[in-house]
Amino acid sequence: MNITHGLRRALQINRNGLAIVYGERRKTWSEIGDRVARLAAAIRATGAQPGDRVAVLSMNSDRYLELYLAAGWSGTVIVPLNIRWSALENEDAMRDCRAGLLFVDKAFAQVGTVLAKAIAGLKLVYVDDGETPAGMDSYETLIERTAPMPDAMRQGSDLCGIFYTGGTTGRSKGVMLSHGNLMVNALNALGEGLWPATSVYLHAAPMFHLANGAAMYSILLSGGSNVVIQGFTPDGVAAAIQRDRVTDTLLVPTMIQMFVDHPKIGDYDLSSLKGIAYGASPISDAVMSRAMKALPNVQFTQAYGMTELSPIATLLHWKEHVGEGRAKGRHRGAGRATFGCEVKIVDADDRNVPTGTVGEIAVRGDNVMMGYWERPEETAKSVIDGWMHTGDGGYMDEDGFIYVVDRVKDMIISGGENVYSAEVENALAQHPAVAQCAVIGIPSERWGEQVHAIVVAKPGAKATPEELMEFCKTLIAGYKCPRSVEVTETPMPLSGAGKILKRELRKPFWEDKTRSVN
Amino acid sequence: MNITHGLRRALQINRNGLAIVYGERRKTWSEIGDRVARLAAAIRATGAQPGDRVAVLSMNSDRYLELYLAAGWSGTVIVPLNIRWSALENEDAMRDCRAGLLFVDKAFAQVGTVLAKAIAGLKLVYVDDGETPAGMDSYETLIERTAPMPDAMRQGSDLCGIFYTGGTTGRSKGVMLSHGNLMVNALNALGEGLWPATSVYLHAAPMFHLANGAAMYSILLSGGSNVVIQGFTPDGVAAAIQRDRVTDTLLVPTMIQMFVDHPKIGDYDLSSLKGIAYGASPISDAVMSRAMKALPNVQFTQAYGMTELSPIATLLHWKEHVGEGRAKGRHRGAGRATFGCEVKIVDADDRNVPTGTVGEIAVRGDNVMMGYWERPEETAKSVIDGWMHTGDGGYMDEDGFIYVVDRVKDMIISGGENVYSAEVENALAQHPAVAQCAVIGIPSERWGEQVHAIVVAKPGAKATPEELMEFCKTLIAGYKCPRSVEVTETPMPLSGAGKILKRELRKPFWEDKTRSVN
Repeated sequence: MNITHGLRRALQINRNGLAIVYGERRKTWSEIGDRVARLAAAIRATGAQPGDRVAVLSMNSDRYLELYLAAGWSGTVIVPLNIRWSALENEDAMRDCRAGLLFVDKAFAQVGTVLAKAIAGLKLVYVDDGETPAGMDSYETLIERTAPMPDAMRQGSDLCGIFYTGGTTGRSKGVMLSHGNLMVNALNALGEGLWPATSVYLHAAPMFHLANGAAMYSILLSGGSNVVIQGFTPDGVAAAIQRDRVTDTLLVPTMIQMFVDHPKIGDYDLSSLKGIAYGASPISDAVMSRAMKALPNVQFTQAYGMTELSPIATLLHWKEHVGEGRAKGRHRGAGRATFGCEVKIVDADDRNVPTGTVGEIAVRGDNVMMGYWERPEETAKSVIDGWMHTGDGGYMDEDGFIYVVDRVKDMIISGGENVYSAEVENALAQHPAVAQCAVIGIPSERWGEQVHAIVVAKPGAKATPEELMEFCKTLIAGYKCPRSVEVTETPMPLSGAGKILKRELRKPFWEDKTRSVN
Repeated sequence: MNITHGLRRALQINRNGLAIVYGERRKTWSEIGDRVARLAAAIRATGAQPGDRVAVLSMNSDRYLELYLAAGWSGTVIVPLNIRWSALENEDAMRDCRAGLLFVDKAFAQVGTVLAKAIAGLKLVYVDDGETPAGMDSYETLIERTAPMPDAMRQGSDLCGIFYTGGTTGRSKGVMLSHGNLMVNALNALGEGLWPATSVYLHAAPMFHLANGAAMYSILLSGGSNVVIQGFTPDGVAAAIQRDRVTDTLLVPTMIQMFVDHPKIGDYDLSSLKGIAYGASPISDAVMSRAMKALPNVQFTQAYGMTELSPIATLLHWKEHVGEGRAKGRHRGAGRATFGCEVKIVDADDRNVPTGTVGEIAVRGDNVMMGYWERPEETAKSVIDGWMHTGDGGYMDEDGFIYVVDRVKDMIISGGENVYSAEVENALAQHPAVAQCAVIGIPSERWGEQVHAIVVAKPGAKATPEELMEFCKTLIAGYKCPRSVEVTETPMPLSGAGKILKRELRKPFWEDKTRSVN
C-alpha cells in the first residue's frame, strides 16, 4: 500500500465529494486527482527521479496536501521542512538529504531565494497566490501546462518521506518513513476509531509535522474532507469549525490551552466538532479540565508517539478520560498500544522492568521507521531488534496502560532521587495563576541538580515564587518541589510541534558546565 | 506484523480477560498465551522447521484457534483442511503441500489414520477429549510436557497459511497467504468498524475456512473474546448467543436462512447480538428481508471477497441495507472497496469497462495472496500487475458500489443473451414456497444453453415447475426465465463455505458434452 491509495479509492467511490477547503477555494476529489497527477508529472519533469528528495517549506495550505500526494504519485520522497527553523537549520536539512527541488509559499519565498543561492542547482517552485518571485516556477502554471502521469505505484517498503525531528534534544535527524509505515499507522488509527470514516478534518497544527500527519494520512485513506487553515490561531480554528462544520481536529496541548482559554470562544458555533486528538506532549490535568468544560460535546483522545513511529504508539480513548477510567487515574497516562503496536518498558540494559517501574518506553510494529537518513549508527542505537527506543521515561500498569513520566533526558536527578519534570509541571499547572510552566534541572553543588521552574502567568494573574513553591508542597513530595521559580512574561521557546524546548531553557544555566544529557 | 501480534498485545493489556469459551471450557489470554507457546514448541519438537506445513482436520473448537496461533508462533505454516472433503481430496492437498504433521479431532480421527497409512512419515496429533487413538500423540500431553518457546516473530511477507480453495469450479488450489496479507485484511475490517474493539465473537462458520477467517484475524488483533461452537446448527447458534452474550458473528447466507427460518428462534434471548457479517455468496432479497424481521436489533454487513483476497475486498455497510441506501438498490450489491482495497471491472482483454457495464471484478491491495502454492502459471493468470482477477462478473455504479451478478463461469449464454443466474435466483427466491434454489445453464440444441432451475421447497409448501416459471415472468425478462424447473427434496450440494456447488448440479446434464467452463 502507498499514500496515494486513498486518493485512487476516493476517485472511485467519491469523485464529486468535497476533498479540500482552504479559504474560498474548494476542490472535489476529481479535481484533486487531476491536479496531483499533473503536479507529479511536473516534479518528474524537473529531472527528479523516483527516490529523489523534494522539499517543502510552507505554511499550511490546500496545496501542501497536494504536494504530499504528488510526491507519492511521482515516486519521489517528500521532505517537509520546519517552519520554525532558521534558514541555516533548513539549509542543513536540505544538504543532509540532497534535495534538488524546493517548494516555498509567500512566507518563505525569501528564505527560498537565500537557500537557492547557497545550494548549487536547487530549483524553486512558488506555491502561493500573487506574482511568482524571480528565479521560481509557478505552481499553478506547472499544473496547467503539464500532462498527467500515471501513479508511480510505490511499494509499501519504499521510502515515502524524510521528516526532520524537531530536536528538543540534540541535533536534528532525518526520520525515514516508508509508504507502509505511514499506511499502517493510518489503518491503526482508523481501526481504533480515532477518525470516523466521514470525518471533516481541520488541519490546524503545522502540516510539515507528523503530529498533524497522525491525522492526515488516516483522512487521506478514509477519503474524508480536509479543511485547512494557514496556521493555528484560536479565532482561526473557531471560525473554520463554524464555517465548514468541522467534525474532528488534532491540536497539541499548548494549542488546546490557547483555544479553550480564548475569551471569545463562546461567540462561535462549535456544535459540529465531535473529536479532538491531542498529542506531541503531555497535557496537564488543569488544562484538560478547562478544555472539557469549554467543549462539553467534544471527545478527547490522546495519541502518544513520535515521528520515528509514524507517529502513533498508544491511544488514550475518551472513555479513559471520564468515569471509571478517570477514577483509576488513567487520564493521566498515554493509554494503551494501538492494534498494530506493542509497547515495553526497559531498563538501561534493555531488560524488561516489572509492572509499575519507570524505565524507557520501547515500541515495536510496522510503524517503526526505516531508520535515520544516512545515520546507521544512530539508527542502530534507537532501533534494537525492531524495538524503537523512544527516549521517553514511563511505566506500564497491569492493564497495559502507559504513563509517560518524562523524557529520559529531562529527568532530574536531585540528591540521588529521580524527579520527573512532568509531575512537577502537573502540580504547578493546578495553581490558578499559571498559564504555562516548565521544570528543568539546574546545576547545584549540594544536590547535583536542583529542581527549577519557569512559569508564565495568566494575563492579569500574579503569583510569587514562594507562593508557587508552597503550593507544590501541598501536592507532591518535598524533594520534588522546585527550589527556585522564575515567573516571567516571556513566552516559552517552542518546537515546531508546540513542545517547549527545554534545552533552550536549560542553556543559560549549563553553559560552561557539563551536562551530558543537554 | 504477524498473526500472533494480537496475542502478544492481549497478554499485555488484557491478561486476565476472557479469550475463549468452548462448551464448559473457558480460558483467559494469559492461559492461551502459555498454551500457545508450549504447543508451538511441541510442533517444532516434531521436527517441523519454520516454513514447514502443519495441517489441521477438525470441527470447530477452542483448540483450533490455539493451533492457528501456535503455527504462527512456531514459524510454521498452517494448512486448514476442508471438513466437507473426502479423505482422498484431503490426501491430495496434504501431498500437494507436503505437510508432515496433521492434527485431527474425534470426528476425523479415522480419516487421520487412513491418511497416515497413505502418506509416509506423517505424524498425527489428537486434538480432542477422551482416549487418544493408537498411533497419535495427545494434544494436551504435548502442551503439558513441552516448555514454552519464544515467538518466532514471522515477518509480514512470510507465508502464514495455505488455504485450499473450496473449488466450486475446477480443481482446488492452495492459496498462499502471508502474515501481512491476513493482518492488513484484519486492520481494514477493524478500520471500517466491521468488528467493534470489544467484540464477543461467535465462531459458527467452519474455522478451516477463510470466511470465518474474515472475522477471526480481526478479533485476534483487537483482543476480543471468542465463543466457539463445534459446527453450525440454528439451535447451537441461538444457545451460544444466549449463554455467552455474543455480540457479533459471521454466517454465510445459507446459515442465515436456516437460522432465521428456525421455528424456535423466538424462544432464545438474542438481545446481546448486535452484528452479523455475511458473505461467501450473495444473499437473496427474500432471505435478507426475513432475517431483518427475525433479528430487528441486528445490523447486517456484507463482506464480499474470496480466499485469494485474505478474504475481504468490499463491504456493504448496514446503512446501505436500509433507508436511502435501500431505496437506491444498494442492498443488492456488495458495497464498496474497503480502506485498503481498490476494485476495477475489466473486460476479457483486461481493459476497464465503463460504469454500469458488466465485466470481471479485479481487486488490488496488500491483501492479495502471495500466489497459488507451486502453481506459478495459475498465479500469473489470476494476479496481473497486482490485480487479483476474481472470476466474478459484476459492475460498478458511479459511486463505486459493486454489484456481483455471477461467477463469470456461471453466466448462462442462452440464444446469444447473457443471463446471470443470480438474478434468476433472486426472482425465484421471492416465491413463498422456495427455500433454496440454483439456476444453471444446461445444453440446448436451439439456444446453446438453456436456463434451468433446481428448487428446494420449504417443508410443507408446494409449487409446480409451471407455477414457478410463470412467477419469474412477473419479475424478470422472458429470456431470463427458466425454461425448465426441477422441484426436489434433495438438499443442495454445498462447499465447505456453504456455497452451492453448481458444478455438481451441472454434471449430469453435461456429461459427454463439451462445456469448457465446467
